[in-house]
Amino acid sequence: MAAHLLECIDCGKHHVPAEVEYLCPECSSQQKPMQPLAGLLRCVYEYNGVARFFEKDALAANTERGLARWLHILPVLSPSSFPPLIVSATPLRAAERLRVELNLPELWLKDDTVMPTASFKDRASAMVVAVARERDRETVATASTGNAATALAGQAASVGMQSVIFAPASAPQAKLAQIATFGARLIPIKGTYDEAFELSIEACREFGWYNRNTAYNPYTVEGKKTAALEIWEQLDYRAPDWVIVPTGDGVIAAGIEKGFSDLLAMKLIDRVPRLALVQAEGCQPIVRAFESNAEQIVPEHRPQTLADSISVGVPRAGRWAMKALAATRGTAIAVSDDEIVSAIAMLGAISGIFAEPAAAASLAGLKKLAAHGIVKSDETVVALITGSGLKDVAASMRAVKIPKPIKPSLDAVRHALGV
Amino acid sequence: MAAHLLECIDCGKHHVPAEVEYLCPECSSQQKPMQPLAGLLRCVYEYNGVARFFEKDALAANTERGLARWLHILPVLSPSSFPPLIVSATPLRAAERLRVELNLPELWLKDDTVMPTASFKDRASAMVVAVARERDRETVATASTGNAATALAGQAASVGMQSVIFAPASAPQAKLAQIATFGARLIPIKGTYDEAFELSIEACREFGWYNRNTAYNPYTVEGKKTAALEIWEQLDYRAPDWVIVPTGDGVIAAGIEKGFSDLLAMKLIDRVPRLALVQAEGCQPIVRAFESNAEQIVPEHRPQTLADSISVGVPRAGRWAMKALAATRGTAIAVSDDEIVSAIAMLGAISGIFAEPAAAASLAGLKKLAAHGIVKSDETVVALITGSGLKDVAASMRAVKIPKPIKPSLDAVRHALGV
Repeated sequence: MAAHLLECIDCGKHHVPAEVEYLCPECSSQQKPMQPLAGLLRCVYEYNGVARFFEKDALAANTERGLARWLHILPVLSPSSFPPLIVSATPLRAAERLRVELNLPELWLKDDTVMPTASFKDRASAMVVAVARERDRETVATASTGNAATALAGQAASVGMQSVIFAPASAPQAKLAQIATFGARLIPIKGTYDEAFELSIEACREFGWYNRNTAYNPYTVEGKKTAALEIWEQLDYRAPDWVIVPTGDGVIAAGIEKGFSDLLAMKLIDRVPRLALVQAEGCQPIVRAFESNAEQIVPEHRPQTLADSISVGVPRAGRWAMKALAATRGTAIAVSDDEIVSAIAMLGAISGIFAEPAAAASLAGLKKLAAHGIVKSDETVVALITGSGLKDVAASMRAVKIPKPIKPSLDAVRHALGV
Repeated sequence: MAAHLLECIDCGKHHVPAEVEYLCPECSSQQKPMQPLAGLLRCVYEYNGVARFFEKDALAANTERGLARWLHILPVLSPSSFPPLIVSATPLRAAERLRVELNLPELWLKDDTVMPTASFKDRASAMVVAVARERDRETVATASTGNAATALAGQAASVGMQSVIFAPASAPQAKLAQIATFGARLIPIKGTYDEAFELSIEACREFGWYNRNTAYNPYTVEGKKTAALEIWEQLDYRAPDWVIVPTGDGVIAAGIEKGFSDLLAMKLIDRVPRLALVQAEGCQPIVRAFESNAEQIVPEHRPQTLADSISVGVPRAGRWAMKALAATRGTAIAVSDDEIVSAIAMLGAISGIFAEPAAAASLAGLKKLAAHGIVKSDETVVALITGSGLKDVAASMRAVKIPKPIKPSLDAVRHALGV
């Protein structure tokens, strides 16, 4: 088990879990709607006491898979609390052909398209379901652009917990179909994800549901940090120089920073990798704040991008993401929808990985950063591929063409091939 | 490396690989089009010599993942020939809630929805690409209902090999989009999969492409058998009593039989599990042959089922599937499209696994077999879940409803919940 406290990232005060559930009461008391959250909480552990569980020999002897492998730095008491829809270590792919193409010989792709519900969000959802089970919560709810909801619905289904989902009605149909198939109570919203987020907080208060909203629930970051822990183990107990993170709310950025910071606190690495956050041009509040050195993130009220998973005008974990950028000497960059569409095709044709738009944004951003010399060819780079292209086939159809059907004859084949 | 010979399942004659590429020349000399294939070849190894590599201690010390783990009984010389889009052991899920629901306490789900291209077919495609690389073949082609093609396109892309795909133009768009995104030369056919199969054989002869067609290429069975090997290792070196297999061409059935037969030949198990083949009511040539004790399988020229992956009127590996049924005291059963649709919803809501129709046919068939007392509650059962529901969202939409969108207000939520 892992005892932990909740530390406010704004005032630094420590809170006792369960006494405080979501945000630092003081720092969030003036919280305005439709703004990044103040008083986000960060789990802290007895790092000196648990470091020994993560030394090379101890990990080699650790037979637990998925989240349970990291139990001693997770806010869960028993490995049996994790849902059986196991979130194992996802592959860290060498992607040889992409390395050559981008002249990045130490490029790796963290391929979360093969997660149980086909996105990175299984990490956070499995974690929150585990906590909900230990706290005897019967219903868990979330707002989501689609993937977090799908993951929550699936993970909850696997343990017989009721889930309630607030998602924009405009989410790709594949995501809505997944949510409904997992037996969730799906409430499609005529509005943006940001509006669904506000509504879900109200509804959780009203109906007593446990709230899994990203960033708002501190354990979402703890789930997401497991990607960093896996990367470290897969790189033979090293941190990379860069991690490329598609960014909407900023919680994956927070999770990656948190995972490596935990490793640093245990003296298992000597620095946290630099983060490169990638947003869509049509929805880039974090990039704008980064580029203008602004204190405050200005929400974007009309997000415009085909990358639905990062179409987030109000980055709820924006404050944490900005701190992570500063602490890691990171960077933030925007890419156009056209660049994202090209990256879907490039990633598919060169590596055999089929990514949804937000996931391909990683590659689109990395291409630019490498071209600008910000990411250098002697650096070790991990790009997060956060969701499957099967979640949004319409987007991939902007990248490629299905040829016209032919009659089943050899002559027709010759004609189609132009021979 | 693993030396092997190719044994004809009809005449028993042994052939030398590369001298004979696809079928037994004698037995296939009278092969008629649009009929199950005669002269299918089965790889045989020096089982006595290699058994030691699969004893418990040896396997525990084996650090190879994916297909390479089984190198000593695979037709490949070097582990580096396998594509980097690794096909690891997929999860064998305990699915507690489904066990209770079906009163099958030893039920396991082999979850191949998390494969790199989201179906079981990565196994065969990765294998054939490895063989093609060792034989310096530049282009590899296949006919497919969709998943085998997707897998071939993705695995080939990961190593820079050209792939050519013949698929029915009516395949779900997600599969066609994947194939195109992987940079394959996609040739959609106005016709059935069975017609695409015939055409692809002609085209491979004409253009000199290496042919990955299922069953026709003997190494497809060798790829598919790895599911059996993984199940055996995951069940702690035991064979289950039953394996439930969604069945189109019959090659997965052949692969499962082959994998366990290899283990039996190495004296690592003492019997091959019984196979239960599940077909769709609208396309059940193997079930019909099984039920009528017929010598010959009568092709079904107008397959009618929403389960596109098993919409195969001419089961090319039908002869092998029938032999496997006889040898394992297996059974074959048909399920309706409605039963398949219900099984998609049940599997999703009870286990958090989102299956395509053919994959859910496993569960639909198992429900019937358990109800009929053919599969008994004290037996260990593994159901293959062969492809992701994200491949065919339209089918899942027949199983569930997306509720009407609401305005983002608490009152609208109350109204939607009926409170």
